[in-house]
Amino acid sequence: MAVTVAGITAPVNGDRLWRSLMDMAEIGATAGGGVGRIALSDLDKASRDLFVGWCREAGLAVRIDRMGNIIGRRAGADDDAPPVVTGSHLDSQPLGGKFDGAYGVLAGLEVVRALNDAGITTRAPLEIVDWTDEEGVRFTAGVVASGVYAGQFDLDYGLNLPDREDTTTLGRELARIGYDGDAPCGGYPISAFFEAHIEQGPILEREGAVIGAVLGAQGRRCHTITVTGEEGHAGTLPMTLRRDALVGAARMIDGLNRLAFDFDPLPVITAGYLQVRPNSRNTVPGRVTFSVDIRHPDNALLADICARAESLCRRLAEEAGVAVEIAEMFGRDSVAFDPDCVEAVRAAAKRLDLVCRDIHSGAGHDACNLAHIAPTGMIFVPCKDGISHNEREAATPGDLAAGCQVLLEAMVARAGIA
Amino acid sequence: MAVTVAGITAPVNGDRLWRSLMDMAEIGATAGGGVGRIALSDLDKASRDLFVGWCREAGLAVRIDRMGNIIGRRAGADDDAPPVVTGSHLDSQPLGGKFDGAYGVLAGLEVVRALNDAGITTRAPLEIVDWTDEEGVRFTAGVVASGVYAGQFDLDYGLNLPDREDTTTLGRELARIGYDGDAPCGGYPISAFFEAHIEQGPILEREGAVIGAVLGAQGRRCHTITVTGEEGHAGTLPMTLRRDALVGAARMIDGLNRLAFDFDPLPVITAGYLQVRPNSRNTVPGRVTFSVDIRHPDNALLADICARAESLCRRLAEEAGVAVEIAEMFGRDSVAFDPDCVEAVRAAAKRLDLVCRDIHSGAGHDACNLAHIAPTGMIFVPCKDGISHNEREAATPGDLAAGCQVLLEAMVARAGIA
Repeated sequence: MAVTVAGITAPVNGDRLWRSLMDMAEIGATAGGGVGRIALSDLDKASRDLFVGWCREAGLAVRIDRMGNIIGRRAGADDDAPPVVTGSHLDSQPLGGKFDGAYGVLAGLEVVRALNDAGITTRAPLEIVDWTDEEGVRFTAGVVASGVYAGQFDLDYGLNLPDREDTTTLGRELARIGYDGDAPCGGYPISAFFEAHIEQGPILEREGAVIGAVLGAQGRRCHTITVTGEEGHAGTLPMTLRRDALVGAARMIDGLNRLAFDFDPLPVITAGYLQVRPNSRNTVPGRVTFSVDIRHPDNALLADICARAESLCRRLAEEAGVAVEIAEMFGRDSVAFDPDCVEAVRAAAKRLDLVCRDIHSGAGHDACNLAHIAPTGMIFVPCKDGISHNEREAATPGDLAAGCQVLLEAMVARAGIA
Repeated sequence: MAVTVAGITAPVNGDRLWRSLMDMAEIGATAGGGVGRIALSDLDKASRDLFVGWCREAGLAVRIDRMGNIIGRRAGADDDAPPVVTGSHLDSQPLGGKFDGAYGVLAGLEVVRALNDAGITTRAPLEIVDWTDEEGVRFTAGVVASGVYAGQFDLDYGLNLPDREDTTTLGRELARIGYDGDAPCGGYPISAFFEAHIEQGPILEREGAVIGAVLGAQGRRCHTITVTGEEGHAGTLPMTLRRDALVGAARMIDGLNRLAFDFDPLPVITAGYLQVRPNSRNTVPGRVTFSVDIRHPDNALLADICARAESLCRRLAEEAGVAVEIAEMFGRDSVAFDPDCVEAVRAAAKRLDLVCRDIHSGAGHDACNLAHIAPTGMIFVPCKDGISHNEREAATPGDLAAGCQVLLEAMVARAGIA
């Protein structure tokens, strides 16, 4: 399955890409058809070993940096020029899918293989990266190794991250699986970074687009809201005397959902976690804790939405006779990708006659870190029903090959041909 | 602290009643100032032994029936006449209070002591009962022993009730603590049953009343509502495509709360239990399960409220694009107490110049079972802040003495004086 549209630089081999994805998915394969490869587990080591072998077979020089990032380098004609970099991650959620992360790494590898097949040398060197621990399942933060690479975090912070049980650290586990490399983690100029990824949402599929030219990643603010009323006997406490924490929380959750529709473009507002105390049929709830996650591509609008959300909750609490505490747990600003990189994706899609639309990333990615130090772009391809972080995650070989071809064109356009 | 209002039959001794309550509360006393005396535990046995001793000191003939109910009998001048019965329970919640149950048993004992002090013999005999396992904490049903007594349940059903871990039965535990009596459980005519109890709600206290003349107990219908939407990534699933189970459930909980205020008198409608799946900040909830407990004194109106609640939930589910299942888990009809018994309570309060108001019981009581076989009434006294099933449960010696005096007057009015 080669992409055979006229005007392409070197055709990627979609069958080979698919086979590599399926071979990789055997490592940590789950009964439900997905993948469970938690970062720095023995399965993660096995996936790294497989990738390193493939890199070497493709003639890449492999180095491991201090954060365990694996970098396969294809020399350029001007090998001192800053490299054009691509990559994503081979670790997964505990019950994740075959494509989240692995696609971006193996699409990078397929770019190299296709250039090898076509006998093309780029002017600038190319680097294909497997970023360590993107998912942040086992240790207490995600996208940390690309963050160290991009100067967002200190190396010591990254290596000393404890696991959730506080029994080991990321650095000790890197050493355990033999991926405590000695190459510097970042610190050198790069020409551009591109990351191919499944969308993890339903927009491309619903709109019949094959390629998403990612404009950036939404900003995100996570809050924990605690509503405190007063417990009482469900049979004996009259309605007129109640201070029901769950009724108060329910009105807030309804109101926050409706609030989203007041803004254009729409934010996403989600109450995903909720806990009731004492959580008994027979007792009027005294306390409810719930999460509110608000995301929007525009930081100023995001701040405005958060302020409106807060005043809404305070007003509804007062009306319901309950107290409310609102704590911001964590947040990140939106990231805008480089206009030239975004345009390179659009242009490649257009040249390949692929239906392309601009899109914002709702999730965080390693590319959001890289955007701090280099012109960055992302390429999204559709995933079935928008489902990700799930064993049922699926994408078609054709869409994956199309995204890979766009990646090749964008990287080569940036690197130049010797 | 004798009640000294003119026109009383025999003054109860409020200090003695209070001392007996405090002595009883030492058995199973908790660090938080409450009581933990789970039915048929060693602590329950100790409280039973103490009560039996007090009954004998007061000259009562004590018998234990097949369900372990302890019955202290004071002979009447016409000892073949059906007895006037009172009582409640000495078992408690795991972290219960000093008064829930124990008050009704020891108030009955104080009635006997006061009549002894005054040298009064009633025409009909009097019986004071400690009903086995009212709370239903350890075994899988509450008010079961009064239910067997009143023909609501079979004796075999009661004795074979398993504990929650299914390691023993109520009957075996009765034998273990030596309270597997051989007296028949019920089956004889009784003239009337009165039960004194703390209100377990805030109404009397808020309205400055000392005595509640209980008209009956509310009917109750318990439902489990399951709302099913579709899980999705909180960052990537657009608002317009969501089927958020928690948003659907929140609108139902708000709507059910508002629905209560459409009826007169007000029902109580409570969503006390709620569980979200997968309950993650980062995931749009796919399923929410919550309880809805609806109570009202009028069975026909209760049925109407339940029907309105169901159609409300179905309409809100449709609007939110989620599915809803509504399962009735259990229910009981309302119980109306005997008008003559209720009037006897009102009349006694009036004669004693105590502020009295009619009230419905929101909770279930042994009296609700007795009402099936005998004219029945209950006397409520205030409890602080309406708090019960809680170590902080509190009542004043004066209110408790007043309720006890009303109990004495109502029982004597029914039994007659020889």
